Amino acid sequence: MAFILALDFGGTKLAAATVNIGSRKWLGYERRLSPGSADAKTDLEIMRSLIYSLLQDTKPAAIGVSFGGPVDASTGTVRLSHHVAGWENIPLKGLLEKEFGVPVGVDNDANVAALGEHRFGAGQGYDSLFYITVSTGVGGGWILNGKPWRGAGGMAGEIGHMVVDPAGPVCLCGKRGCVERLASGPYMAQNLREILEKIPPRRGGLRDGEVLRHLVGDNLELLTGQLVSEAAAAGDDLAKEVLHKAAWALGVGIGNVANLMNPQRFVLGGGVMKAGEDFWRVVRQVARDTALPEVDFEIVPAVLGDDAPLWGAVAIASMLV
Amino acid sequence: MAFILALDFGGTKLAAATVNIGSRKWLGYERRLSPGSADAKTDLEIMRSLIYSLLQDTKPAAIGVSFGGPVDASTGTVRLSHHVAGWENIPLKGLLEKEFGVPVGVDNDANVAALGEHRFGAGQGYDSLFYITVSTGVGGGWILNGKPWRGAGGMAGEIGHMVVDPAGPVCLCGKRGCVERLASGPYMAQNLREILEKIPPRRGGLRDGEVLRHLVGDNLELLTGQLVSEAAAAGDDLAKEVLHKAAWALGVGIGNVANLMNPQRFVLGGGVMKAGEDFWRVVRQVARDTALPEVDFEIVPAVLGDDAPLWGAVAIASMLV
Repeated sequence: MAFILALDFGGTKLAAATVNIGSRKWLGYERRLSPGSADAKTDLEIMRSLIYSLLQDTKPAAIGVSFGGPVDASTGTVRLSHHVAGWENIPLKGLLEKEFGVPVGVDNDANVAALGEHRFGAGQGYDSLFYITVSTGVGGGWILNGKPWRGAGGMAGEIGHMVVDPAGPVCLCGKRGCVERLASGPYMAQNLREILEKIPPRRGGLRDGEVLRHLVGDNLELLTGQLVSEAAAAGDDLAKEVLHKAAWALGVGIGNVANLMNPQRFVLGGGVMKAGEDFWRVVRQVARDTALPEVDFEIVPAVLGDDAPLWGAVAIASMLV
Repeated sequence: MAFILALDFGGTKLAAATVNIGSRKWLGYERRLSPGSADAKTDLEIMRSLIYSLLQDTKPAAIGVSFGGPVDASTGTVRLSHHVAGWENIPLKGLLEKEFGVPVGVDNDANVAALGEHRFGAGQGYDSLFYITVSTGVGGGWILNGKPWRGAGGMAGEIGHMVVDPAGPVCLCGKRGCVERLASGPYMAQNLREILEKIPPRRGGLRDGEVLRHLVGDNLELLTGQLVSEAAAAGDDLAKEVLHKAAWALGVGIGNVANLMNPQRFVLGGGVMKAGEDFWRVVRQVARDTALPEVDFEIVPAVLGDDAPLWGAVAIASMLV
């Protein structure tokens, strides 16, 4: 029976899976963490071992690939990885086609995950949607007229670097108040850390943020986006403030995008979106207030979780069969 | 010879023109101001008189229509006009098809002007572009994959109500710091008026804004966006400040759109874009600084001027022949 091989080169993990064409259930699934010292070569070696373990003596009808970084989707060439060294200009599609002798499609993870949610997840039946992942970064992928929109240079979807607060804190990109600067996990942790560091160390009795300090053994460097969410859920006012600002930034970004592109749906995934109902309520309310009254849209959770890129890779490969 | 009839229902003027299919030169051209008291019925009457004056006893191959307000392009029904009463749910396509017995296409002016610049103006040969008109309002129209992108509900393109300064002044839409609130002509005039009103009336010698006051006979209600531009060009510091803020808002908006959609070109038209080279330089610089370094684009002036909607209407009609 004809089957698809789907590959996901993430920044920190590698995954490969096989699925019969038309099926919604993995036939085989292999996953491994990328070692901290990984470069493109080691990543490729690990992925090859996953692939051969899955394939044994069989051959897929086509291969779809999600790559965690900018890709020229027309040639299937990786431009670079922001996490793993040595990926500059690697012709990933060409390498895989040569080794396995079947058609290969490659695209970046946000575009691929958008396609995955469109075909198999929260975007089924929706012709126009914007998928947003909010985790260590904030990225996005477009489906317009039922197909990926990558932009003239393959750079579309960068809602993470939309400026929503020109008076806000400085982002790694050099601008102030980008969506990513306010809403990504690591930056939320940094924002809370900076607030905590300004509070005098002892004042007698319980200080603001005492619970948080306790959680990280008074080592604020250990704060994470997830801990911010947990502390907010437990009632910590400082954590709530940071989380509220993140939800506000995301809401303004989504409302602006709604005014500009008027898609049917926004599908939101990534670790930060697990921050709870309060977080979702603020995102939805601010987005609604930011969009014009005539602009309709829905904001729904992604349903494929970490497998969205793999399912998108299946969709890409299916188009090549 | 087969020819096209193009119609432009603007907020304040009506225009009709004919052109041979494939030609770039008007065959006939009629234009009339819409009376201040106009409603949909009078506008339609005036337009009919322009049409019959142009057509005499001939019949066009098709009719294209640009309408200054929200339109359901799939049915050719006007939703409403923000400027002229009585346009609610008028089936403009149906009315014209019945009267003239030829195919008719109707869309809103920003989408139509975008198409005009794409086929006949500054967007020729560019598959993806965003057209922005900056005048009494700020609107936009998309061309993606060489075709108009109208959004799921026909509302795409509203860059005017993208929030770029959440601490900025309140817009008619209720939000703070929209692009339109900072960059449209009337709002620029209002912003300057508010600054001037805060300056004490007499202080001996020349006051800030003295030249501007003189221009409007000390009646600040007469200030317009154009006068702001002229005063800035003449060196007035307050006018320069207002104009700079407008250019900044437009630049942030464009940079955000570049990150999000990565189109090849931005084509900018409308009266405010005549504000001079300084204005354009700031728009371009801020847009470049707002976009990620990897995101390439050009910002160019529209070339069809007030005729962009008519030429877009020609493009729409051509598709029906």
